Amino acid sequence: MSWQATILTLFPEMFPGPLGLSLAGRALQAGTWTCQAEDLRRFGLGRHRAVDDTPFGGGAGMVIRPDVVDAAFSATQAGVDVPRVYLSPRGRPLTQQDVRRYAAGPGIMLLCGRFEGVDERVLQARGVEQVSIGDYILSGGEVAALVLLDACVRLLPGVMGCEESGVEESFSDGLLEYPHYTRPAVWDGHAVPDILLSGNHAAIAAWRHRQAEETTRERRPDLWSAWLARKEANKAVAVGGTAQADH
Amino acid sequence: MSWQATILTLFPEMFPGPLGLSLAGRALQAGTWTCQAEDLRRFGLGRHRAVDDTPFGGGAGMVIRPDVVDAAFSATQAGVDVPRVYLSPRGRPLTQQDVRRYAAGPGIMLLCGRFEGVDERVLQARGVEQVSIGDYILSGGEVAALVLLDACVRLLPGVMGCEESGVEESFSDGLLEYPHYTRPAVWDGHAVPDILLSGNHAAIAAWRHRQAEETTRERRPDLWSAWLARKEANKAVAVGGTAQADH
Repeated sequence: MSWQATILTLFPEMFPGPLGLSLAGRALQAGTWTCQAEDLRRFGLGRHRAVDDTPFGGGAGMVIRPDVVDAAFSATQAGVDVPRVYLSPRGRPLTQQDVRRYAAGPGIMLLCGRFEGVDERVLQARGVEQVSIGDYILSGGEVAALVLLDACVRLLPGVMGCEESGVEESFSDGLLEYPHYTRPAVWDGHAVPDILLSGNHAAIAAWRHRQAEETTRERRPDLWSAWLARKEANKAVAVGGTAQADH
Repeated sequence: MSWQATILTLFPEMFPGPLGLSLAGRALQAGTWTCQAEDLRRFGLGRHRAVDDTPFGGGAGMVIRPDVVDAAFSATQAGVDVPRVYLSPRGRPLTQQDVRRYAAGPGIMLLCGRFEGVDERVLQARGVEQVSIGDYILSGGEVAALVLLDACVRLLPGVMGCEESGVEESFSDGLLEYPHYTRPAVWDGHAVPDILLSGNHAAIAAWRHRQAEETTRERRPDLWSAWLARKEANKAVAVGGTAQADH
């Protein structure tokens, strides 16, 4: 049974786009997943197939109509129940846990906004998850949909081959990954850290862990604070356990 | 003078991809920006044009060689000095401020990783910025590059037309945007909030601000805390100001 991706968009020709190549493209050809992009315009109103209108309460820009989105939802319902996700900077941040959940299910339906966005009522009434891929503004939800799909597809069974399977799941332990080095051992006067040539696996693992900590502290104070808090909590548990053992 | 995007990738055929359509596509045709994707394989070594090798210190996966990346940097140097950005989950998070800075410059060079990543030495030695578009794992940097380019291109002079120009810069005041509503006034039994039909612009603005606050508090505790802290700081300044005026 293929993992089903349905995309509601004003630019269906953007899909599968880059996902028709490489890892995701091979999986698409193998039938591991399907990619059905539906033109929202098909559900537009009147002779001009209008999908949007001016916002109630005033303001610039156009808003996509709830009836148009709902008609698209009804017409493209898969045989199975899949999460409906609207990609928007107003959403909660996409995490690797979300990606794992989506990939473990039967598929996903992605709604791509353009202009000011989509009428809020249809999002609420139809149980649409609002998700943001990051704190920046895009011209539309389409490239965000490509990101979400790429993240999901690589986790589908059989998709990652030998070359890719080694990619460690960053964030799984809450730290950024350590830096990587490969041949040549000396490049342009820069040698790889000696420790990596030592053959001492325990020392290498300890060095890599310290590097992961340092990188996280420098680049991601948010992850670093969370990691310290978890470490403190674990220590408290461990101390508690020792105290009990003393009794 | 066009804004120059250069992408170093193992999949040059992924570009411009979705950016060849819609807003970015029209800007590309108009010459507002250029999109040059260079195949890293061109700079690979030996008969097989190898670009990667096993990691020093052991571990699964392959790492892209520093000499290959550096050869690509040298060969594709634009006439102008542009930021070099490596898209990686190990990077600092991409923000709208970064996007504005990149868009305001002459262009950008994007390095897309695959496999375990890129040798750290060439990133350090060649002043490469390491940037992450979000906390999830992609099969490669290509879809992340499309996201970064889409965000930049929409800010280039003349790119946003009337339809799009109304899009408010979310995050500019540190809150998520308020919800949007459009016709019909009653859809499937759901009416738009009365206030939006009142014609009372001050009341509408106040309601929208409260909605922005509530949405931010619910979905983004991180942004909410930062916003509260800024509000407190501003209040302290205002109180200080009043106290001085009293003297």
